[in-house]
Amino acid sequence: MEKIEHIGIAVKNIQEANKIYEALLGNAPYKSEKVESEGVETSFFKCGESKIELLEALNPESPIAKFIDKRGEGIHHIAFAVKDIKVEVERLKKEGFNVLNEEPKKGADNKLVVFLHPKSANGVLVELCQEIENN
Amino acid sequence: MEKIEHIGIAVKNIQEANKIYEALLGNAPYKSEKVESEGVETSFFKCGESKIELLEALNPESPIAKFIDKRGEGIHHIAFAVKDIKVEVERLKKEGFNVLNEEPKKGADNKLVVFLHPKSANGVLVELCQEIENN
Repeated sequence: MEKIEHIGIAVKNIQEANKIYEALLGNAPYKSEKVESEGVETSFFKCGESKIELLEALNPESPIAKFIDKRGEGIHHIAFAVKDIKVEVERLKKEGFNVLNEEPKKGADNKLVVFLHPKSANGVLVELCQEIENN
Repeated sequence: MEKIEHIGIAVKNIQEANKIYEALLGNAPYKSEKVESEGVETSFFKCGESKIELLEALNPESPIAKFIDKRGEGIHHIAFAVKDIKVEVERLKKEGFNVLNEEPKKGADNKLVVFLHPKSANGVLVELCQEIENN
């Protein structure tokens, strides 16, 4: 893993949460983006080489809606930056990790993403992400 | 906030979790440390400019034992590096954040630490930490 790419935080109201995290981090979100395929609205804050991603559910079937129903607002996942996501998925499968989607999918912020099951990593939902190169 | 200093993950068995996170991150923990005042054993892994901190409770009264009883293993807190923790605490109090310990206390990894209440930050337990300078 190259670095912590971002930490994803599930929130009920992203407009209100944006104000709180702007006050906490001392800077405004640099990007907001809807990811319809995941049923989420997101906003991103820079923090050193990493980002904080806030996520609000767009509908009750969104994984974020289900997470909040079950556990309340809070940290939803940690995303690690990887150079080659397919190589990394193969490596982690051999190490015994349970990969939720073997075929990388398009996530927010121009990334290819793969998730590992929280049971593989002591209750932590792990995201691997690789920047999509725009040629 | 300068950067994400570390992400703290509550685990039941730190020896087993060390093996999992060594496989995930591709490197061994660089430090293990007991913090008796907090009732925890910790281990630290480097990841870019940040760290992953695993925490196992040393006794049933430890905040980590209570967290796991209530929610199971998983992400316990996010720690942000700050230059001057007292200045940052004053700033955040004015912004309306609920500071759990106004007087910074000695944490793991040679840090002065202050916690913000999770209710202040959408369910996220936030730690501020400043490196202790050894003169």
